[in-house]
Amino acid sequence: MLGIKNRKTLIENGRSRLDRKARRLALDALEAALKAADPEEIVRSKVGVKGDLLTVGHYEFDLRKFQRIIIVGGGKAGGGMAEVLESLLGSRISDGIVNVPYETGSLETSLIKSHKAGHPIPDDSGMEGAKMMLELVSHLEKDDLIICLISGGGSSLMPLPRGEITLAEKCAVTDALLKSGATINEINTVRKHISDFKGGWLAKKAYPATIVNLVLSDVVGDPLEFIASGPTVPDSTTFDNAVEILRRYGLWEELSQTVKTLLVEGQKGLIEETPKVGDRVFKRVHNCVVGNNRSATLAACSQLRGVGVTPLLLTSSLEGEARHVGTVLASIAKEVDLSGNPLCRSCGIVAGGEATVTVVGCGKGGRNQEIALSSALGISGMDGVAVASLGTDGIDGPTDAAGALVDGKTIARSEECKVDARTFLAENDSYSFFSELNDLIFTGPTGTNVNDISMIIMVK
Amino acid sequence: MLGIKNRKTLIENGRSRLDRKARRLALDALEAALKAADPEEIVRSKVGVKGDLLTVGHYEFDLRKFQRIIIVGGGKAGGGMAEVLESLLGSRISDGIVNVPYETGSLETSLIKSHKAGHPIPDDSGMEGAKMMLELVSHLEKDDLIICLISGGGSSLMPLPRGEITLAEKCAVTDALLKSGATINEINTVRKHISDFKGGWLAKKAYPATIVNLVLSDVVGDPLEFIASGPTVPDSTTFDNAVEILRRYGLWEELSQTVKTLLVEGQKGLIEETPKVGDRVFKRVHNCVVGNNRSATLAACSQLRGVGVTPLLLTSSLEGEARHVGTVLASIAKEVDLSGNPLCRSCGIVAGGEATVTVVGCGKGGRNQEIALSSALGISGMDGVAVASLGTDGIDGPTDAAGALVDGKTIARSEECKVDARTFLAENDSYSFFSELNDLIFTGPTGTNVNDISMIIMVK
Repeated sequence: MLGIKNRKTLIENGRSRLDRKARRLALDALEAALKAADPEEIVRSKVGVKGDLLTVGHYEFDLRKFQRIIIVGGGKAGGGMAEVLESLLGSRISDGIVNVPYETGSLETSLIKSHKAGHPIPDDSGMEGAKMMLELVSHLEKDDLIICLISGGGSSLMPLPRGEITLAEKCAVTDALLKSGATINEINTVRKHISDFKGGWLAKKAYPATIVNLVLSDVVGDPLEFIASGPTVPDSTTFDNAVEILRRYGLWEELSQTVKTLLVEGQKGLIEETPKVGDRVFKRVHNCVVGNNRSATLAACSQLRGVGVTPLLLTSSLEGEARHVGTVLASIAKEVDLSGNPLCRSCGIVAGGEATVTVVGCGKGGRNQEIALSSALGISGMDGVAVASLGTDGIDGPTDAAGALVDGKTIARSEECKVDARTFLAENDSYSFFSELNDLIFTGPTGTNVNDISMIIMVK
Repeated sequence: MLGIKNRKTLIENGRSRLDRKARRLALDALEAALKAADPEEIVRSKVGVKGDLLTVGHYEFDLRKFQRIIIVGGGKAGGGMAEVLESLLGSRISDGIVNVPYETGSLETSLIKSHKAGHPIPDDSGMEGAKMMLELVSHLEKDDLIICLISGGGSSLMPLPRGEITLAEKCAVTDALLKSGATINEINTVRKHISDFKGGWLAKKAYPATIVNLVLSDVVGDPLEFIASGPTVPDSTTFDNAVEILRRYGLWEELSQTVKTLLVEGQKGLIEETPKVGDRVFKRVHNCVVGNNRSATLAACSQLRGVGVTPLLLTSSLEGEARHVGTVLASIAKEVDLSGNPLCRSCGIVAGGEATVTVVGCGKGGRNQEIALSSALGISGMDGVAVASLGTDGIDGPTDAAGALVDGKTIARSEECKVDARTFLAENDSYSFFSELNDLIFTGPTGTNVNDISMIIMVK
């Protein structure tokens, strides 16, 4: 399920023995990272049920104390997480509903219902699921337990516009922010303030029940309030912040009147702010990050070490404009050859996180494909060097590819096909570039998301 | 001469003991790097005269074989290099002229004349010096020796427009390219094709004399043909490349008719291309890189190691848009704290090279100041973390500062002064931001240039 579908082609696209070796090692390391991000593996390793004792990471709960156990939540990993959870808790579960992407297969669950929903642009079905979740939790008591399954994509999959805002208006805001180069934290700051579900509202509505949050983090640095926009987490941001972000990216004027009115009312204190730290509604909320980008990048490093390639985990908090991230990665590759710093060959430099793309052209592409394309320009001419970049959800930008793989001959190959890398990069058209070269990485939707992983592999 | 003038203030701006420690260590490491880039130290260590034997790096020359020894060249380090060379060769020198920036003090030379010239925008005086150099070398014979002193800034300091192009027209092209976000290699590709001096023309005019090039590299990766636009180096670029670059950055239409005409004539083969590899004029040309960014970054690493801070030389080929480079550096700092990768505290991550700034705002700043400002946003809130970035020439962009120093409290301090970091960054106004905070690094012109050095220092 979590493999790279076109491994063979990707390896054979290497023109030299060393290029093929570097490509193979990169794909192996990416597959190790994907395995470490598999929600089923993760939940199985972090959640345990022994008799009446439920353990979640370091937390322990005596299940005899609870009348009802309710499962809610959503995200790209919602399906896998729900399946394992139901297999562990079985008939102790009273009810449950998780919102998952359309591409998720049928769930092997009978008590937890799955609800297919739109991503990255939310839809009515997602909204319906979110409403059903609020319905489920809003009449619970102190002796009820909610297990909330949170993973990447949750923001889009569980939309619930606040007040008079329509879903179409909410989508327009998200869409504009996604294209503006805003960071995911900025996008989610806005989302929280036009939502009835995010930014702690779910916790407020579920009060006084106990909540355990199983979080598979897709946000750099694992800030709980931004993962799926933190439905059960105190919000540190304000209406003022949301308005400031929309203004900074020049989006305020294009907002619908309803959205503007709500945000301005929020600024004036005419409508309630999102629940903040110290609010009693968070007293019985327990958060546990069960998996994140670091666990995946460390798995990639471990895989490399196992085959004699010295790994360096540069960061799992990578941010920045994708094309410049690619340039920096290539700068490091050059130094390896010029001075043996920061490592000597054979080595693998792994960087996880989530870059941004500021769309200026009319092409098709994604963060990872732009990182790869930009790196290809930097490493052009080198032998035995591969740069791979992949979205662990298997969906890089609005494309069917997970990312792309390049080596020091990629630019030469593109020139032979009369495909000019700089032109395609300038047009944000990395997908078309890599389609020509057959160097897109395809995994299909992986059913998980711990951000992106980029790596430079240099062999001898 | 090569020290940081405002050390005390910069250290005392740290709010915590650890911040002050990190700041001090960063400044110490920067000073070690500056020392390693000192042209006098470098020439003294790489050039030797014993009796009639001249050694330059691995090259040896029997001085008895030469009738005349002529010194030409220019760059920010031209003064220091010329002084040491004259002290070594004394009256063996027949004649010499070097173009140096206006801010260079009087040279302690009697045989090598120094000629002050404009930088980064060339001026008539620089042109006059370049003409005098051509004059000096154009009547030499096979048994004459030219020692050519090349260092950063040489492109601007030795302008000689080709054909009918006026200096003002040439300056306009350079100026537009500098503001466009073009890389230095791209800028120099254009410069070579509108010059009578660069791109190998000096070598062609000096043929059949022997040429020894002492190169202090200010170009990432030390490509000889791009350092000072390679007056004595075969040119791998073409008129077509130059035109393509000008078009890519949208500058073609604003070119003067004279420049356009010359470039188009060049494309059509109506005027001579720059001399290429294989041309006999390069048969007696010897190039020796005597100092570069790597020697400086390694010196910084060595200084850190000596005081118990584990160094990591990330790259000395750093490229990319400054603000995104800053974000990536901050991503690495975060990872150090979150997982102890790539190093544990106390550590110093050093990255040399030259970022670019695409000017979109109306502010004042430089590459290094933008890297620092952008990093400050990323490391905000951390303790014992400093990020410093410095141009080794002491002049960061069109400012009197060499760079800037930030720590995890920089953003908090700026908020107290009502100075919004994001706004200043968006306006390319890093200089004003750091002026408010007294966190600009001042060295004055250092009389050298081996690009920029950025570092993250994290202490415990």
